[in-house]
Amino acid sequence: MNAEIIAIGSELLTPFRQDTNSLYLTEKLNQLGVEVIFKTIVGDSRERLTGAASLAVSRAEVVIFMGGLGPTEDDLTREAVADALGLELRRDPAIVTSLEQRFAARGWKMATNNLKQADVISGATVLPNANGSAPGQWMSGKYDGRERIIILLPGPPHELKALFEEQCLARLRAKLPPQFIGSRELKITGLGESACDFRIAPIYKLYTDVETTILAGADEIQLHLKSRASSLEAAQSRVDELAEKIEEELGDSVFSDNGDSMEQIVGYYLQMRNATLAVAESCTGGLLAERITSVGGSSRYFVGGAVVYSNQLKTAFADVPAELIEKHGAVSSEVAKAMAEGIRRRSGATFGLSVTGVAGPTGGSDQKPVGLVFHALASDAGTEVVERKFPGDRKRIRRFASQQALDMVRRKLM
Amino acid sequence: MNAEIIAIGSELLTPFRQDTNSLYLTEKLNQLGVEVIFKTIVGDSRERLTGAASLAVSRAEVVIFMGGLGPTEDDLTREAVADALGLELRRDPAIVTSLEQRFAARGWKMATNNLKQADVISGATVLPNANGSAPGQWMSGKYDGRERIIILLPGPPHELKALFEEQCLARLRAKLPPQFIGSRELKITGLGESACDFRIAPIYKLYTDVETTILAGADEIQLHLKSRASSLEAAQSRVDELAEKIEEELGDSVFSDNGDSMEQIVGYYLQMRNATLAVAESCTGGLLAERITSVGGSSRYFVGGAVVYSNQLKTAFADVPAELIEKHGAVSSEVAKAMAEGIRRRSGATFGLSVTGVAGPTGGSDQKPVGLVFHALASDAGTEVVERKFPGDRKRIRRFASQQALDMVRRKLM
Repeated sequence: MNAEIIAIGSELLTPFRQDTNSLYLTEKLNQLGVEVIFKTIVGDSRERLTGAASLAVSRAEVVIFMGGLGPTEDDLTREAVADALGLELRRDPAIVTSLEQRFAARGWKMATNNLKQADVISGATVLPNANGSAPGQWMSGKYDGRERIIILLPGPPHELKALFEEQCLARLRAKLPPQFIGSRELKITGLGESACDFRIAPIYKLYTDVETTILAGADEIQLHLKSRASSLEAAQSRVDELAEKIEEELGDSVFSDNGDSMEQIVGYYLQMRNATLAVAESCTGGLLAERITSVGGSSRYFVGGAVVYSNQLKTAFADVPAELIEKHGAVSSEVAKAMAEGIRRRSGATFGLSVTGVAGPTGGSDQKPVGLVFHALASDAGTEVVERKFPGDRKRIRRFASQQALDMVRRKLM
Repeated sequence: MNAEIIAIGSELLTPFRQDTNSLYLTEKLNQLGVEVIFKTIVGDSRERLTGAASLAVSRAEVVIFMGGLGPTEDDLTREAVADALGLELRRDPAIVTSLEQRFAARGWKMATNNLKQADVISGATVLPNANGSAPGQWMSGKYDGRERIIILLPGPPHELKALFEEQCLARLRAKLPPQFIGSRELKITGLGESACDFRIAPIYKLYTDVETTILAGADEIQLHLKSRASSLEAAQSRVDELAEKIEEELGDSVFSDNGDSMEQIVGYYLQMRNATLAVAESCTGGLLAERITSVGGSSRYFVGGAVVYSNQLKTAFADVPAELIEKHGAVSSEVAKAMAEGIRRRSGATFGLSVTGVAGPTGGSDQKPVGLVFHALASDAGTEVVERKFPGDRKRIRRFASQQALDMVRRKLM
């Protein structure tokens, strides 16, 4: 079965805002075996919205409208969909009562424009909205002579998600042939996209029944594997088998096989080993600590660190001798090593991790170009230093450098 | 004039990828006075793409296709647009030569599938692509009896942007009535969206010729003002006048009137005063330093700081007495003050800035709930402390807290 998703709202046609609800809906629909074949974004114009609705009902089996269900003059989805289907709107007394109660509970008097939220397309089932005033609507049956499912959902993401999960999923499942989706997500670091694809394409191409999607970011490749079958076991065993073969080929470049982030993985390993971590970072400027502490509960293994942006702080917080900086420069293997060892000693952590480099756009030289970064990891067993030259702009270089630093901890603890 | 943007590619119909090119194109089109009335996202299906192309040409005056111009079997935009317009494709010998040269320059032999990139729709102007192998195409004239402009652009953002700017902007401008757009962006902090709108709606509603868009994030509201007129001066003077009145109403809650970020503004002020800053952060975990150092050249005013996640590091790096933490708790006005003063003393910076709070999801209590954050700013003139209770999840609370901390520096230096 296939679907069209229509996002409604003039703000979605400005340079500032983007529909993101459709990513969520696509995931849910895909899991049910429904393929999204069109996404349409249309403004708050009754005529254009009616046209888009007619077209969608003619070309897709499931049509989902998002937004335009509120109380204002701009909210025209109910009217436009009714027009497109040639159906009437009727005011639902139960919704009117519930709207009145909603306002009364807050001690407010309801403005009359709210009443339009009680208008229901003839034949539609009302989907109560626990998180907002505008209910959704569900229709299924023959429209324009074709079997269709038509759903109207509110635009605010938390309303849309709750309503879809609680009231649409089961209804959709009942309408669809039973189908099961197996899926896996692998994350890979330390490999370029084309180098990665070159190695794994001969493997995943043999699995014609598994859909493989490759997404690349700064030093992180995501591989999404998906397979459909008539039982969950059958579907999952195919993606698991392929995932295993890809992991065999790529070895420890695969850092996650369940979608977890690098910072989560590093956290798991540290907790497992009862170890703690402290960081001293220069060019990443706090990003490394920020990524580690973005994980809830990270205080169990992360003691903290120092953002030693100035040379003086490299000495004050990480005990880097001023002469060492003088001699080798702040961006050097020697200073990276001293930073990692110094922050480990000062913090008492099991591991000391450091980053120093040139993030740009200025500050580069022939010897030390923009993108040159040194990373060091100090432990009981000594200190290892990794030198890398990253491509891209300041933001990308900082992201690459934080990923490389975290990956050193992962590899150490693996 | 109005436009439809069509993004082509099956990956844009997955849960993982989103079209972002259209935001860029919308901004450029708006500046020319062209309004975007539809965005359509369609997969690599010749039939569906042909249908979408026919429809777009029937309902919009400017139609821009993005993607599907490469050499693979999935790249079907040329074929589909030609089908939709009832026109032929002809192979352009000049493009064939340039493709061959492109491959030869790299010492490669060109695979024959590349030749389809030389197919040009009858009557179209070829738009050479300096950054990739697939050229764009430009058509203007009567199609289906209506005056239309139809543009085919490559999908990779850097190719699309360069090609649009260098080869489409001037052509579009020549086809459009002269029109000028004045615009301003105001950024506001310390006010909720509805409180802000309540105060400024009576003002901006008087400027019916200025389009006002309000976007709200964590402790930051963006106000986009836009006006069209027959001269740039006339357009700009209207938005400037409105911006001035809004700034009068909101006072120092407006922190930027040219789109600059809070971290840039703080940087400007520090440089202007020849002052330096150091931070000691707990619950923001590096985010505050990361935001400050995301600005190129921040080493001129930012000396660094400490991510004092553990109590031990609060003492070691910010000289917070252990007894003070024992007595008041790490999340307290007293500890925030000691952190700011300690990091200032230890770093020698003009200002010491600190954050300590409960970011959640765990670690909250009745006395110190999730969202409670203390911020302190220490200087020669003494130390001020601000207590706030932020809503939302861990990520949002950390963003709020970093914004509040930066805003204290801004207000101090203003």
